Amino acid sequence: MAKIKVGIIGASGYTGIELLRLIAAHPNAEIELVTSRTYAGKKVASVHPYLGSVLDLTYQDVDTKRIAEQCDAVFTAVPHGSAMEHVPELLSGGAKVIDLSADYRLPQKVYEKVYGMKHAAPRKAVYGLTELHPEVKNAKLVANPGCYPTGCVLAVAPLVSSGNVESIVFDCKSGISGAGNTPSERSHFPNLAENILPYEVTTHRHVPEIHQELGRFAKVKIYFTPHVIPVIRGILTTAHVLLRTKMRGDEIERVYNEFYKGKKFVRLVKTPSLASVRGSNFCDIGLYTEGNSNRVVALSAIDNLVKGGSGQAIQNMNLMFKLDETSGLWFTSVP
Amino acid sequence: MAKIKVGIIGASGYTGIELLRLIAAHPNAEIELVTSRTYAGKKVASVHPYLGSVLDLTYQDVDTKRIAEQCDAVFTAVPHGSAMEHVPELLSGGAKVIDLSADYRLPQKVYEKVYGMKHAAPRKAVYGLTELHPEVKNAKLVANPGCYPTGCVLAVAPLVSSGNVESIVFDCKSGISGAGNTPSERSHFPNLAENILPYEVTTHRHVPEIHQELGRFAKVKIYFTPHVIPVIRGILTTAHVLLRTKMRGDEIERVYNEFYKGKKFVRLVKTPSLASVRGSNFCDIGLYTEGNSNRVVALSAIDNLVKGGSGQAIQNMNLMFKLDETSGLWFTSVP
Amino acid sequence: MAKIKVGIIGASGYTGIELLRLIAAHPNAEIELVTSRTYAGKKVASVHPYLGSVLDLTYQDVDTKRIAEQCDAVFTAVPHGSAMEHVPELLSGGAKVIDLSADYRLPQKVYEKVYGMKHAAPRKAVYGLTELHPEVKNAKLVANPGCYPTGCVLAVAPLVSSGNVESIVFDCKSGISGAGNTPSERSHFPNLAENILPYEVTTHRHVPEIHQELGRFAKVKIYFTPHVIPVIRGILTTAHVLLRTKMRGDEIERVYNEFYKGKKFVRLVKTPSLASVRGSNFCDIGLYTEGNSNRVVALSAIDNLVKGGSGQAIQNMNLMFKLDETSGLWFTSVP
Amino acid sequence: MAKIKVGIIGASGYTGIELLRLIAAHPNAEIELVTSRTYAGKKVASVHPYLGSVLDLTYQDVDTKRIAEQCDAVFTAVPHGSAMEHVPELLSGGAKVIDLSADYRLPQKVYEKVYGMKHAAPRKAVYGLTELHPEVKNAKLVANPGCYPTGCVLAVAPLVSSGNVESIVFDCKSGISGAGNTPSERSHFPNLAENILPYEVTTHRHVPEIHQELGRFAKVKIYFTPHVIPVIRGILTTAHVLLRTKMRGDEIERVYNEFYKGKKFVRLVKTPSLASVRGSNFCDIGLYTEGNSNRVVALSAIDNLVKGGSGQAIQNMNLMFKLDETSGLWFTSVP
Repeated sequence: MAKIKVGIIGASGYTGIELLRLIAAHPNAEIELVTSRTYAGKKVASVHPYLGSVLDLTYQDVDTKRIAEQCDAVFTAVPHGSAMEHVPELLSGGAKVIDLSADYRLPQKVYEKVYGMKHAAPRKAVYGLTELHPEVKNAKLVANPGCYPTGCVLAVAPLVSSGNVESIVFDCKSGISGAGNTPSERSHFPNLAENILPYEVTTHRHVPEIHQELGRFAKVKIYFTPHVIPVIRGILTTAHVLLRTKMRGDEIERVYNEFYKGKKFVRLVKTPSLASVRGSNFCDIGLYTEGNSNRVVALSAIDNLVKGGSGQAIQNMNLMFKLDETSGLWFTSVP
Repeated sequence: MAKIKVGIIGASGYTGIELLRLIAAHPNAEIELVTSRTYAGKKVASVHPYLGSVLDLTYQDVDTKRIAEQCDAVFTAVPHGSAMEHVPELLSGGAKVIDLSADYRLPQKVYEKVYGMKHAAPRKAVYGLTELHPEVKNAKLVANPGCYPTGCVLAVAPLVSSGNVESIVFDCKSGISGAGNTPSERSHFPNLAENILPYEVTTHRHVPEIHQELGRFAKVKIYFTPHVIPVIRGILTTAHVLLRTKMRGDEIERVYNEFYKGKKFVRLVKTPSLASVRGSNFCDIGLYTEGNSNRVVALSAIDNLVKGGSGQAIQNMNLMFKLDETSGLWFTSVP
Repeated sequence: MAKIKVGIIGASGYTGIELLRLIAAHPNAEIELVTSRTYAGKKVASVHPYLGSVLDLTYQDVDTKRIAEQCDAVFTAVPHGSAMEHVPELLSGGAKVIDLSADYRLPQKVYEKVYGMKHAAPRKAVYGLTELHPEVKNAKLVANPGCYPTGCVLAVAPLVSSGNVESIVFDCKSGISGAGNTPSERSHFPNLAENILPYEVTTHRHVPEIHQELGRFAKVKIYFTPHVIPVIRGILTTAHVLLRTKMRGDEIERVYNEFYKGKKFVRLVKTPSLASVRGSNFCDIGLYTEGNSNRVVALSAIDNLVKGGSGQAIQNMNLMFKLDETSGLWFTSVP
Repeated sequence: MAKIKVGIIGASGYTGIELLRLIAAHPNAEIELVTSRTYAGKKVASVHPYLGSVLDLTYQDVDTKRIAEQCDAVFTAVPHGSAMEHVPELLSGGAKVIDLSADYRLPQKVYEKVYGMKHAAPRKAVYGLTELHPEVKNAKLVANPGCYPTGCVLAVAPLVSSGNVESIVFDCKSGISGAGNTPSERSHFPNLAENILPYEVTTHRHVPEIHQELGRFAKVKIYFTPHVIPVIRGILTTAHVLLRTKMRGDEIERVYNEFYKGKKFVRLVKTPSLASVRGSNFCDIGLYTEGNSNRVVALSAIDNLVKGGSGQAIQNMNLMFKLDETSGLWFTSVP
């Protein structure tokens, strides 16, 4: 079978270069072209030396029409508000699109409110949380989920779908790579090392995505607070789930095992750990009941740049092109 | 005024040596003797080189009677179960005692259940969370609080005392020094760096202390989960507080300002940070309301070895000996 | 072509489990059996959860004879002194052996002096620094190099082979994984974080290996000092090379390019970085001349567990079995 | 005795705020005014919350003349090229000045070559490496040393002064705070964590300072290479010293003990460690001979912001004002 020809728009940020890393080792896909306004004309390896020898590519300027012609699959790894400028032409040019920005994750109205801007080009898209959306297979446009929603929704979806959840406090701890590769006060080493930085404590933009995905199962109250920890990659989500009716540990495990049957990238483990998922596409989940209360703690661990970003995007591509979903992604973490 | 003569039983663990560091710079106290079963006969600075030149002390064997005779104030910085072997004789010998173990923090019955052992020598003690217990001033025996209870209780006491709290989820993130100076799987650098380790997710022994202290104000549901982050010192407590009736931000601030009036080591800040308290005795608190819900997020940051341990112990000593509570503790963090 | 059947003796330490990680993704090799005295009978994934789903293996007891029968290639990933107990029988049983311990790296006499023990079973072995030893192709027994010698020798071999080097100071900075997975004072997080630990400052056992390999080209004075930095993986070697006669930067580069022509895992780069090699088999080298002196600084960066250990071992296996040396190793770092 | 009235010009960078931290706890000095162009009019604690409660100061605009009138001692904690704009007027106004920039460390000619600019206001200054310059006592203007020269010179001065040193390779490892508080590529957490960054490998501007100070004792060849390690504070200097004639370990120790007799901030220790000096003004030195060579390795550890910056500046102030040199600085590290 011919390899999938892949284009990446915006291949200089963390999600873009993570796509390069992953597709470089994908047996059924090859990178046809990569774009970057900042680095057009430069060798990719001159900007990101770790890709040297393995990838011989040159950044190009964005020419959406040509990209659609040359590529089977296009990843848009650009900021929200920018993806919508490319997606319509990519689709009409016949390419399948996986958008890693927030532009196609929410209904237009919600999007416009949350992101404070008009949506220039709404299109029908499938929300690419693969484990919950089998319709990814037939999608032309997939909205790749946010990193926090991936960890949060996978942590609790089975319980929520059981109808027995009253409320959930999501307390998330993320590596700083989620904030991108531009130096900032928060990413300044002396500010983050030996520290932990809560931010957007009650106002994070990922909350509506979590609402949307869990709301498909049942109505639950959701509280969300993110923190940055002195770590490069990974998100640990501590989901404090308050049940309507107490459940035993083995009952809960049964619910999860059934819900995630056949989902190869979700693993039930004793204690989730960022080390166990670093660099890999796995989402590890651990479950804890409490002796004298209705609380269940569901912990999930993902690599925010892989299962929470570029790995999941490739998982979606695999399904859209009728490949096994593990193709090019079946490796362990680098602990 | 003569300096307070201080004895430290168990001065080789993290809380013991932190007492040494702090008292070495205390204008009104001096270290009379330090004990360590492991290091008896050795120079303190040969075991802990950073104390060299500043402190010229030799570890001695424990002789409780003699310690009580020689010292005005004795800190017991030994594991729970061990402090109770020394405290009665110290008290009867006339010393004032600050116990840094868990032995005198809880009523006997609760203690025996939580720590799974008989209490050999129950005594009346004051719980040394100074800001809430003015009776420390007249105490002969102070039970210095656990590190997590210090951060948790200070974060929410004003709100709980207002009677308007229904439930609280405490999600705590601690530096690894809280686990002591013995190498372990959890403290093994490759296991903790680039990671975050949830532990005793629903079963931590500090919960009864939190219950006890908050229960003095009002009945609230409490959930608690601790994590270790790749940090040496500090605890960030994220307290997700569900109110019965929504309050505005300024109302909440007023409650806190009133509650902590004159409490010099509690600071209301915009965003608590471990860097801002590292090495110091401050507890920084930040408060966040949420637009569409009854949740208030109260964040507190302490150095677990100072305000969460040895600094608070000295604060207690200061009060027990009629000194200003800031004596020897009025310095900033080392950011 | 049938896949190479691989056995790993001692598959629970860091080099052993890194072999598992790498071979799990190798297209031409498969793990036939793994042994561990400590974990015999246990599932590998129950001990190392990150290998879950990808590898379904159970630790076995060591039965050298059976291993030789079942496996084409055997990796001995046990401490020095222990490998020599297995190697003779593995060889006589027909297996090709890659020994990751120090047992076969040095001439018997040197070995016995450096490691302070009798060598029970000396055998002819090829030193597996692949780039310098093409005879690996025909070897039955390969002595996989130490991590420091790999980084040091690759950094300076071209210059030394030019005959123009008088002396070299190797100042090495290693991640702590080089010290193994047993918790120790040095690996205790509060001791290593925010610190750097020099050790065996003038007495490290890897020096004779470096002497041996560089001595094959020319006589040079060698000084070596290692440090542990608060990093999990990687070694940066700063080689301060004093030349007999000053050379220009472009001359030096020409020497390196020629020396490493066709060596795919060595890359000349502007600034070597652990991030650029983390998890990968590359050795990145950077070269710096000094305006007014005969010093050249040669920097090399490797992942101590990959090019400095298990990756290089697989590179050796590839050559011993007539595969392309990049087979199963042609991927980028996880930055 | 009246407290020394202190002014700080440029009190928003790391060295400036470290002066604030230290003087806040100084028994014989008090901060009269602090300036910052960026933050003039703002409360210091609003910019640096960790100084809250302890310091109640407001940033002012720079008015050199008024500062000289109001203050006894003025610290200029501004970039090189900027200090020279203030120093003449401060001196003529009668203040004693400690300049933390590079402006007065080198002879005019050397300065102009190294820093690539004209010197607008050369003045006679004493190089404030206190242990080597007793004339600090009578100085009106002290040039506070660079952080690297402090660690390097203290590590080897006794040996060099013995006349037995041929050459020295200084391989330095610094925390990132040395690069200041402006976010940059190098200080971006994902670039520095789990990494080590060599920079200005053969071209660092601190080399002439080291030459100058060691050259006062004897002629030696000097090589210098700095690295940034994933650490906030501290510099470990590994000085590989090649002797003309081999010396025994005890001989070397005697030389150091004699040289540093009465120098309270220099400690000879078994193994220097950043943890042992973090936040303190100590310089710890360790010495290692090598069995079969003329090499001595001298290791020194300092906190770059304290002994390598603001602490040393206060040590100089103490001497200039006839105080004990330890005043306000006699505390241990925060390990």
